[in-house]
Amino acid sequence: MTSERECINLIRQYAGNRENDFLVKGIGDDCAVLQKDEAAYLLLTTDTLVEGIHFDLAWHPPYLLGRKSASVNLSDIAAMGGLPRACLLSIAFPGVVPAWFEEFIAGFTEALKEADTQLVGGDTVKGHNDIVITVTLIGEADKKNVCFRSTSQPGDLVWVTGFLGNGAAGLELCRNGLHAAGASAEKWQPLIKAHLDPEPLIGLGAVLAASGFVRAMMDISDGLATDLAHLCKESGVGAEVQQDKLPVLPLLEQAAAELDADPLDWLLKGGEDYQLLFTTRPSDEQQLRNLVAEQSGAKITVIGHITDGSGVYLSSGGTRREISYQGYDHFQKTNQ
Amino acid sequence: MTSERECINLIRQYAGNRENDFLVKGIGDDCAVLQKDEAAYLLLTTDTLVEGIHFDLAWHPPYLLGRKSASVNLSDIAAMGGLPRACLLSIAFPGVVPAWFEEFIAGFTEALKEADTQLVGGDTVKGHNDIVITVTLIGEADKKNVCFRSTSQPGDLVWVTGFLGNGAAGLELCRNGLHAAGASAEKWQPLIKAHLDPEPLIGLGAVLAASGFVRAMMDISDGLATDLAHLCKESGVGAEVQQDKLPVLPLLEQAAAELDADPLDWLLKGGEDYQLLFTTRPSDEQQLRNLVAEQSGAKITVIGHITDGSGVYLSSGGTRREISYQGYDHFQKTNQ
Repeated sequence: MTSERECINLIRQYAGNRENDFLVKGIGDDCAVLQKDEAAYLLLTTDTLVEGIHFDLAWHPPYLLGRKSASVNLSDIAAMGGLPRACLLSIAFPGVVPAWFEEFIAGFTEALKEADTQLVGGDTVKGHNDIVITVTLIGEADKKNVCFRSTSQPGDLVWVTGFLGNGAAGLELCRNGLHAAGASAEKWQPLIKAHLDPEPLIGLGAVLAASGFVRAMMDISDGLATDLAHLCKESGVGAEVQQDKLPVLPLLEQAAAELDADPLDWLLKGGEDYQLLFTTRPSDEQQLRNLVAEQSGAKITVIGHITDGSGVYLSSGGTRREISYQGYDHFQKTNQ
Repeated sequence: MTSERECINLIRQYAGNRENDFLVKGIGDDCAVLQKDEAAYLLLTTDTLVEGIHFDLAWHPPYLLGRKSASVNLSDIAAMGGLPRACLLSIAFPGVVPAWFEEFIAGFTEALKEADTQLVGGDTVKGHNDIVITVTLIGEADKKNVCFRSTSQPGDLVWVTGFLGNGAAGLELCRNGLHAAGASAEKWQPLIKAHLDPEPLIGLGAVLAASGFVRAMMDISDGLATDLAHLCKESGVGAEVQQDKLPVLPLLEQAAAELDADPLDWLLKGGEDYQLLFTTRPSDEQQLRNLVAEQSGAKITVIGHITDGSGVYLSSGGTRREISYQGYDHFQKTNQ
């Protein structure tokens, strides 16, 4: 057992996923989905961040780490087209530094407030070696709007919001000390911010969900190559992505040149984009573009289409290669 | 900032606890309480267990650790008089041993099944040094039956279920290697089981809540001295406990003699009893005894009464001393 995916398969096997009058969707989506009342579902999601694996205190200020701990979970609610309602925080730390903890909590609760939700409980315990942060969010979604991963169809267009790879580029810039170097830090700020303080796309997720055009949706937390493979597996389909359609910020290409890195790795494999990945019927393309332009102004890009069969393929010029699950896996790669 | 309590105070300050049309009760009880529908509340609780702090792999078999990870959270639902409905599991581990993880998950899901609930999601991540387990449970309670900590009144009787201190005694027996020594392990089995595989009192909690006699309730996870102080603080009252009324298993006194320990420390300060602590009007005593005898058969004991003022006092013979918050604090004492 070497990957997060294999652990999850074992958990799914034991969990059994007995859907009943309360459980609508168990393991296998951005959130678990439960019945709330006649009109709404409850959404539940949890994420754990481990010091030295998911964050590095050398460059992550506590206020921004607090914000990010909330935001990565808010993103899972956004990915279902829901709105966050309440949050639980569990944190284990070995040495409690009051100023550090207060800044962390200030950032954490600020990000929740921006998303119109709040902290309602949790657990604070003495850790042994590392800081470990687990956040659980409870959200709500209209039954008629909720977006699953499992409902895309062959022929659908594959879309992403914003730009890809910025979080991965920001992480590499921080690793190389370029977050702290005056004018240089300012130049790279959009990428560094994408790593240190990503924005959860709750408003955009809600607009997409309410549009009625989205057939399947999730957020990109482990990289496009892995997350699109998850969406395809849950939907029982495949996908083909066109390399020249991937939305790239010019600054990311500059950063790749500066660090002698391959920008395509960041676009496909870099975790922590927190952009939304979704599919629609081809015939709905223009209507969706008009609606998003009007209601959000966000950038949305068609990057490929859903196919019969299985697997995620990248096409470029005349070549075509499989990229399924080539994204970030916290069991195989660490931040250090 | 040296204690869990001080961290929680800081969290409460930032969380703000803005109760609204969705949030009924925020930080400060066994569970957060949210609106579900006309008849029911949602209950939310989370607990984190850290290797080397809350459990020791030297004596905790993975199957039983899985059960306990579920049970300590189920106990929080029981303490509100609710029923568990769905569970999330986050686990971080540095080295993944397939057989260990499979046994853990088997025990975890078995304990959920016994409580008529199931695992619906979570997160599995690479840890850096220690195994860290965070469980979140979602439960439900009838609005008319839910039991808070904050509603006890001066003059109420203070009750506990079962026996106190068994979990603390079991931990000491394990620390001293007496869990593995053949006939000795069999002799101490009830105490060792209380530590390795405590039972969540969901059925009993539901009987107490539905009785209509319980004014306030919580579970004992940090020791009677600390948890009764929590109940008193939330209710704005004090309490007096009579030492000679504390329910002690004779086997615990034998274990204390064997280990040269003070049994009173285990009764008052030992964490992880997972018994229920509750209060009732004195006039309801006999009716409650009759009802519990009929519907559950569980042992329930009056150990003292609620007073005006504040603080928890222990009286014995003619003496009286304050014991508020003298229980287990994971920031001040570790398992090692």
